[in-house]
Amino acid sequence: MKTQRRFLATFFFMCLSLAYVIAAQAQADPLPSWKEGPRKTALLNFVSSVTNSQGDQYVAPEERVAVFDNDGTLWAEQPLYFQALYAFDQIKANLDTHPEWKETEPYKSVLNDDLDGIMASGMEGLMKIVGVSHTNISSDAFTAHVSEWLNTARHPETGKRYTQMVYQPMLELLDYLRANDFEVYIVSGGGIDFLRVFAEEIYGVPPQNVVGSTLEARFEMKDGVPTIIKEAEVNLVDDKAGKPVGIYRHIGRRPILAAGNSDGDLQMLQYTTVMRNAEDSTPRFGLIVHHTDAKREYAYDRDSHIGKLDKALDEADARGWVVVDMKKDWSVIYPE
Amino acid sequence: MKTQRRFLATFFFMCLSLAYVIAAQAQADPLPSWKEGPRKTALLNFVSSVTNSQGDQYVAPEERVAVFDNDGTLWAEQPLYFQALYAFDQIKANLDTHPEWKETEPYKSVLNDDLDGIMASGMEGLMKIVGVSHTNISSDAFTAHVSEWLNTARHPETGKRYTQMVYQPMLELLDYLRANDFEVYIVSGGGIDFLRVFAEEIYGVPPQNVVGSTLEARFEMKDGVPTIIKEAEVNLVDDKAGKPVGIYRHIGRRPILAAGNSDGDLQMLQYTTVMRNAEDSTPRFGLIVHHTDAKREYAYDRDSHIGKLDKALDEADARGWVVVDMKKDWSVIYPE
Repeated sequence: MKTQRRFLATFFFMCLSLAYVIAAQAQADPLPSWKEGPRKTALLNFVSSVTNSQGDQYVAPEERVAVFDNDGTLWAEQPLYFQALYAFDQIKANLDTHPEWKETEPYKSVLNDDLDGIMASGMEGLMKIVGVSHTNISSDAFTAHVSEWLNTARHPETGKRYTQMVYQPMLELLDYLRANDFEVYIVSGGGIDFLRVFAEEIYGVPPQNVVGSTLEARFEMKDGVPTIIKEAEVNLVDDKAGKPVGIYRHIGRRPILAAGNSDGDLQMLQYTTVMRNAEDSTPRFGLIVHHTDAKREYAYDRDSHIGKLDKALDEADARGWVVVDMKKDWSVIYPE
Repeated sequence: MKTQRRFLATFFFMCLSLAYVIAAQAQADPLPSWKEGPRKTALLNFVSSVTNSQGDQYVAPEERVAVFDNDGTLWAEQPLYFQALYAFDQIKANLDTHPEWKETEPYKSVLNDDLDGIMASGMEGLMKIVGVSHTNISSDAFTAHVSEWLNTARHPETGKRYTQMVYQPMLELLDYLRANDFEVYIVSGGGIDFLRVFAEEIYGVPPQNVVGSTLEARFEMKDGVPTIIKEAEVNLVDDKAGKPVGIYRHIGRRPILAAGNSDGDLQMLQYTTVMRNAEDSTPRFGLIVHHTDAKREYAYDRDSHIGKLDKALDEADARGWVVVDMKKDWSVIYPE
């Protein structure tokens, strides 16, 4: 009898513990790297209201589309877009087969790490630089090259791997949205193929959910093997007014949440959040990541050459977009 | 005691019944409109082998990508692609505002239902016809027009609504694949926006899983409303060698199953099924719908102007593609 009672007591205690663990999990903070305050509260309230099937702000799961810029929103973008650094490194790595680059712009400036010289070569020069590593190459070879680079190259200022320079609070936000049946997409000015090399592993975003700038491509049976060749012409510049076009083309649904950090995201934020007509009452969320932390990351906005944030910052108030202050709102920048 | 025994007997019987129902459901034919035979067996065996986690043919769910052509594969395409019939109807409906069309080709031929005259106008004429209904129009207005047409127009020969001319056996195949964690995409030479109007309701394929021929588009804030305008230039012809490019661009993964019915699907079948190298042992499935049923549908292949099936039919044997004989293999064509 005593044994039985002890057994029952133990069993009862175990049930209580289990219930406690379950309750604690349910209440665990889904955004632990976001400090308490109006931005975190706005995010939590938005997700809570669109997922409450009893409320008047409810949005069906298939309409819960969230789009995220990449450079400066999910990972860092200073001193230059990481994809540009990849292009530079490929030029340096291929110098043996192109000795003439030592005396020819824009390659010469790349070899000398002369950013002013590169900028002076203009769009034409940049296209030449990108062309070396990104065009007239099979998609498989390109993927292999980028993958190797990501596994070996290190950021010139932090010494970290580029994939370590993602923002921990944003990783938490992606997970939080997916846990609430959002479909999360990347919509980036960066190259779609470049992004797809790491988006699934680092962000949990599969290739079909990546929208990016796109080059023309052709298909051919090359020595009997089905092959996609990346060409030199541009198919989509997925930046500024190109972002809503990319969303329309790839997703075919208007998002209810958009996150960006620069004027390149202005039109995506407008497309996502501005009502179409008086009957359009779907709740919508615009998020801007404001780089305010010179110590832990970088501080820049209106005057920056990379990730200039000016018009979108002016429009944020009137549109009700939530502007994240990285210094104040994030307890952690990069994952530990 | 007797009551208790009766209760137990009833409970036992209910459990048995439930087990029986569950077992029966598990064994229910997932492809009831497919007649028993080598084609049905091949499909069942393929799905069974790639989903068997203990077998050496297992494919992880995220790699279970299946791509389907639309015209002639999921719905009928005779006497002309239905989207062309839509374009013709829009010209007829807008004659009031363009009386000059009565005397101008190719519109004159359209108004007279003169297919030879339309064909004689060549690609330039066809682009003019498509231009009237498909370009310089907002995406929202286009969607509304197509939707209204699908709800009212009827096929000139069957008198059915166009969305009733889908193939019941293929609807079952889409469901069967999705039930086995395949991600199903449409990859069509037809217009991406046209397809998206009905693909979700009719096929269960959401907009983001539709790949199709694409026009350029632009984004603008029109009277304060975010608007996508369809333009006249072509961005992607998602046919023949354009299909692998569309798959690469939208999905970013190579499919393991492709289904088509014409030479327009040849390269998609190659891209899906031909091994890349000696180590590439992933099981792959190519399916061709062969139109052999003049009585219940249409019979055509090598000499047809629409849906010509010639090279792909020649290649089917060597590649191991399964050629469905609509007359022999399908007990039903259209849904009842």
